[in-house]
Amino acid sequence: MIKAGVIGATGYAGAEIVRLLINRPDVELIHFGSRSYAGKEYTSEYGNFRSFADVICGGDDLEELSKEADVIFTATPQGYLAGALTKEMLSRCRFVDLSADFRLKDPKVYEAWYGLKAASPELLEEAVYGLCELHREEIKGKRLIANPGCYTTCSILTIHPLVKAGLIDPASIIIDAKSGTSGAGRSAKVGSLFCEVNENVKAYGVAKHRHTPEIEQELSLAAGKELTLNFTPHLIPMQRGILVTAYADLIKKNGALPAREEVEAVYQDAYGKESFIRLLPPGICPETRFTEGSNFTDIGFVIDERTGRIIMMGALDNLVKGAAGQAVQNMNLIFGLEETAGLMQPPMFP
Amino acid sequence: MIKAGVIGATGYAGAEIVRLLINRPDVELIHFGSRSYAGKEYTSEYGNFRSFADVICGGDDLEELSKEADVIFTATPQGYLAGALTKEMLSRCRFVDLSADFRLKDPKVYEAWYGLKAASPELLEEAVYGLCELHREEIKGKRLIANPGCYTTCSILTIHPLVKAGLIDPASIIIDAKSGTSGAGRSAKVGSLFCEVNENVKAYGVAKHRHTPEIEQELSLAAGKELTLNFTPHLIPMQRGILVTAYADLIKKNGALPAREEVEAVYQDAYGKESFIRLLPPGICPETRFTEGSNFTDIGFVIDERTGRIIMMGALDNLVKGAAGQAVQNMNLIFGLEETAGLMQPPMFP
Amino acid sequence: MIKAGVIGATGYAGAEIVRLLINRPDVELIHFGSRSYAGKEYTSEYGNFRSFADVICGGDDLEELSKEADVIFTATPQGYLAGALTKEMLSRCRFVDLSADFRLKDPKVYEAWYGLKAASPELLEEAVYGLCELHREEIKGKRLIANPGCYTTCSILTIHPLVKAGLIDPASIIIDAKSGTSGAGRSAKVGSLFCEVNENVKAYGVAKHRHTPEIEQELSLAAGKELTLNFTPHLIPMQRGILVTAYADLIKKNGALPAREEVEAVYQDAYGKESFIRLLPPGICPETRFTEGSNFTDIGFVIDERTGRIIMMGALDNLVKGAAGQAVQNMNLIFGLEETAGLMQPPMFP
Amino acid sequence: MIKAGVIGATGYAGAEIVRLLINRPDVELIHFGSRSYAGKEYTSEYGNFRSFADVICGGDDLEELSKEADVIFTATPQGYLAGALTKEMLSRCRFVDLSADFRLKDPKVYEAWYGLKAASPELLEEAVYGLCELHREEIKGKRLIANPGCYTTCSILTIHPLVKAGLIDPASIIIDAKSGTSGAGRSAKVGSLFCEVNENVKAYGVAKHRHTPEIEQELSLAAGKELTLNFTPHLIPMQRGILVTAYADLIKKNGALPAREEVEAVYQDAYGKESFIRLLPPGICPETRFTEGSNFTDIGFVIDERTGRIIMMGALDNLVKGAAGQAVQNMNLIFGLEETAGLMQPPMFP
Repeated sequence: MIKAGVIGATGYAGAEIVRLLINRPDVELIHFGSRSYAGKEYTSEYGNFRSFADVICGGDDLEELSKEADVIFTATPQGYLAGALTKEMLSRCRFVDLSADFRLKDPKVYEAWYGLKAASPELLEEAVYGLCELHREEIKGKRLIANPGCYTTCSILTIHPLVKAGLIDPASIIIDAKSGTSGAGRSAKVGSLFCEVNENVKAYGVAKHRHTPEIEQELSLAAGKELTLNFTPHLIPMQRGILVTAYADLIKKNGALPAREEVEAVYQDAYGKESFIRLLPPGICPETRFTEGSNFTDIGFVIDERTGRIIMMGALDNLVKGAAGQAVQNMNLIFGLEETAGLMQPPMFP
Repeated sequence: MIKAGVIGATGYAGAEIVRLLINRPDVELIHFGSRSYAGKEYTSEYGNFRSFADVICGGDDLEELSKEADVIFTATPQGYLAGALTKEMLSRCRFVDLSADFRLKDPKVYEAWYGLKAASPELLEEAVYGLCELHREEIKGKRLIANPGCYTTCSILTIHPLVKAGLIDPASIIIDAKSGTSGAGRSAKVGSLFCEVNENVKAYGVAKHRHTPEIEQELSLAAGKELTLNFTPHLIPMQRGILVTAYADLIKKNGALPAREEVEAVYQDAYGKESFIRLLPPGICPETRFTEGSNFTDIGFVIDERTGRIIMMGALDNLVKGAAGQAVQNMNLIFGLEETAGLMQPPMFP
Repeated sequence: MIKAGVIGATGYAGAEIVRLLINRPDVELIHFGSRSYAGKEYTSEYGNFRSFADVICGGDDLEELSKEADVIFTATPQGYLAGALTKEMLSRCRFVDLSADFRLKDPKVYEAWYGLKAASPELLEEAVYGLCELHREEIKGKRLIANPGCYTTCSILTIHPLVKAGLIDPASIIIDAKSGTSGAGRSAKVGSLFCEVNENVKAYGVAKHRHTPEIEQELSLAAGKELTLNFTPHLIPMQRGILVTAYADLIKKNGALPAREEVEAVYQDAYGKESFIRLLPPGICPETRFTEGSNFTDIGFVIDERTGRIIMMGALDNLVKGAAGQAVQNMNLIFGLEETAGLMQPPMFP
Repeated sequence: MIKAGVIGATGYAGAEIVRLLINRPDVELIHFGSRSYAGKEYTSEYGNFRSFADVICGGDDLEELSKEADVIFTATPQGYLAGALTKEMLSRCRFVDLSADFRLKDPKVYEAWYGLKAASPELLEEAVYGLCELHREEIKGKRLIANPGCYTTCSILTIHPLVKAGLIDPASIIIDAKSGTSGAGRSAKVGSLFCEVNENVKAYGVAKHRHTPEIEQELSLAAGKELTLNFTPHLIPMQRGILVTAYADLIKKNGALPAREEVEAVYQDAYGKESFIRLLPPGICPETRFTEGSNFTDIGFVIDERTGRIIMMGALDNLVKGAAGQAVQNMNLIFGLEETAGLMQPPMFP
């Protein structure tokens, strides 16, 4: 029985970890940590868990929790884990961090985009970037996992195979992403009110969103050289879901664009055996609704012969594959469990 | 292994049965029947089931299906099953009918409210009204279950204990219900378009909605005498969920209203051991979001000392406890399985 | 030219006053007051007013404003105006108060429901309850108008004629109301976040909502005796709109229920000449979408022969007829303008 | 008094024309034409117009209507007007066509993208592309206006000045557009049902949407040479609104990107005097909610120094500036009225 604790259990991502673990026969949830709601009933905020988790919220004392838990999920603000984690804690407990503290390998990049001091080099060195489909073998048995961002998971999974296979020009990538509002978290901000979000769509963080360097880091690895790209997130009046629409110039060979079949083969080669990636048939575009509540990423593409570009599209549930689901997938890998354990529910529609 | 077939698998309720059964180790889904989509890929309509149910839709030939299936779920238009079902089919297969064909015991009442000819008296006699919490013992081992309506399940569960205990005046019941739009089904009607439903709320079927006699039938049984009531459904711009707000005059004893504790005791007595009913603590009102995707019904109430009335409230997911979930619960009871099998996922929020 | 000021111009109701007045040739908006945003650009919060109101928000200094304005609209928290208003200010400026400070004639009732000290008897005496259709003549030329609540406007207009005509039993009234989320205001509360409101419906303030005594006050006047009633508000995932579904026992004459025509005649008598009330034909239920953005209230009803009750329904836009529109209607009356001035835009759908 | 008729008055765009004209003192609406609802009450479909347009829907007999009307708006399926319009009708009546029949100057392009026979060369020659800000002078006094598409209006207005000024590489343009669901029209399709659209986002018509050649036509004119571009529309769970996010490579001069001020000057030069275009200050991104119900287009941009691209953003209400509002603006121009007549209401928010 794995003893698991969650810090940030009253945020949307933290609560989703609870949803995914609460019925697991092999996992015991021993801590529902929350800075804001410590001492209060967990179900007073999350009535859905009534009769499942009739517990009192604990606090965010990482030191104490690390003595009792086998694994701790931190769904916490930037800087929390980097500031609290010690080597001693690491020696006795595993950590899956849903913040950005350990995602960027280069401290300078982190500090430039986040305006915060980066984690210690030692810890950064130890951390593994937990995009399971790309770094599966590195994750197994590790102690500190940097769970990827929601936009980044969707963007990287959608584009990575074509960059790696050299089918697209790495300098030409443009990512236009659309996200449901749960991605903005559960803090009380005017901008997240129903009447501000509903019946609206807007871009935000244009040319400066913090998920940009994370995408660039992983795609640069695939390209074998540094690349920069445009990433534009948009806020959509829905709860869950991220759709990525990515554009790139296809590289011609002998003056001809690659055939659809060639691109399909590259995707198939990369993801054909993956449990959580569904490659869509020609003519079908990914839709966020068909991934809701699940750990799946749906991927499709269209080649535009007129412009020579490819439009790559990916959809996932930002709270599952984009956060809690991938965190659980990481936990499964860490402990040598079946990677899909507890994650194979079909998406719920409508 | 139970072989199950669904007729009407491309409707919202039918698809929800698929969602609840597709991963069951003890059930095999052998037929995805659909009059409109027969011959087409099931996932072309329900992309969420890609990699779970990559099958071709079958038709609605009940005769053939009843030779292969152990149980058939019919999520079909009024009159379909009553017109197609024979005693021979019943001798070899069990039926859980999600239409209203067998819900009303009195054929005259059926014909008055539905304007259709009632099912044969023999079949009506055989059918059991499948509100599991009220008719559990009758359901076990039966061959033909009339799965209750969505509004009716919520209304009856919310009010039944107080009628039975004689705490409220049966002549005073008023039910004001609010439903998400999936209750209107998946047929292409202008009235169900996004732009017609969104940013709107309206009552419909006022004083003549067909779920009225069904509620009256069950509550009359509880009251031990015929009662009539007001039932007003409303359409809400959301996908899933029904909330019932019901009003009744409390019966005074020695000039005093019953205390909150007394009412609580009655509910507790009725539902304290039920797996799918959650009685909420004082001050907490049911919310549909906290039941979404689950088979739970949440119930709460408020006594208004000023007017002498009680306000009873119940919430559930119309596609689960209000349709597919209860149908599966009925299947579990029929076959002597654990009643909660496959139905204990926590609700999903947000 | 009437000089008008708004205190609370950055709330939803205050901003709606701006929308209704900004293009008026006979009104000049001289003050966009806001405690939270004083000193900031008004359009940084309300981008819709770019090029219409490119101004800096002022503060909430009533004393100063009352020296320059002919009329002040206060869309402010409970207690603000009662605490700030003086006879001197009243001597030079008119006030339309959108809070509840002056709505309840009986200070004890106010204090019991609001838990705040009531306004001074002198000011209460001076204030007129500004439900224009009922108190039109009293409003004309007055200095202090208590603009009615949103739920109350809809409830009272829907029920009043039948109480006054003695068609229904005043002791039997039950009001089940549904409101869009703008009614909760623009303050940053977790409960108003998109992900908390969307895909949900719930009752709140059951048996204790503060609009109850306001409805009872006006309907008691109509009944000619004190009445109590049940009022249950619900929160709906939409921005604007209130729908009231009200139930009452029809009073039989010689053992017979009143005919539909008789009820219609009563409504027609009360509202036939009203500009902002639309009586719907038989079979048509009010829908909030058909009032959106307008000052109309749509009213319809159904007689249930089976139970002897009448179901009365009313719909309006909570920010217009339920707040800002009625406030402007009151302003028009105060100053002897055409009552409909600036208020005759058709509702916007979809 | 201008006598105006609408064919297609029961569609969303047609009904929006009614909303914009119904209160005009200088326009009389004499015909509410509808193929599907001819002979029925207009308010049975559009309850918002009760007391404004209590009329019976007429049919779609263009011949007859052209004898009585001064101007006819056709909000009709592709091919209707091209098939019905004659020179004789044109000689006595003006036409503003909201379909695509006369938008594309090159019949071959029309036939390739629409799969329909193009209008006669003579009529095509006569038609003016009614994007008012670009073709104002040509429109005045004309008889046949091709009212632009919704996506195209937003896309062209957002990008046109920079193409014309030579600031961006015409070969690099990528348009990622997001639209509310009213753009899909009011026909009863499963794909437009509330439960299919809500909680979802998807791309559609990727690389083949019919608005593409229309955008290319106008931007090619600006560039002075043929260009092709990528246009990807997305369906958003909201009623109204289009947001365009467009990407292009900035052209360097002497190795440097143009400064923000230079781009601003180009936009200012193009639109500084326009009544319906609002150029947003630095740091503000367009949001559809701030244009709702109005004829405005809000435009903003961000220069990404890292990638050398500019991100141009535009927002409008697809039913107003994207359809009916622009149609009325065209009518105003045709008849020599004030261009803004009847179109200066501020947007409605929330």
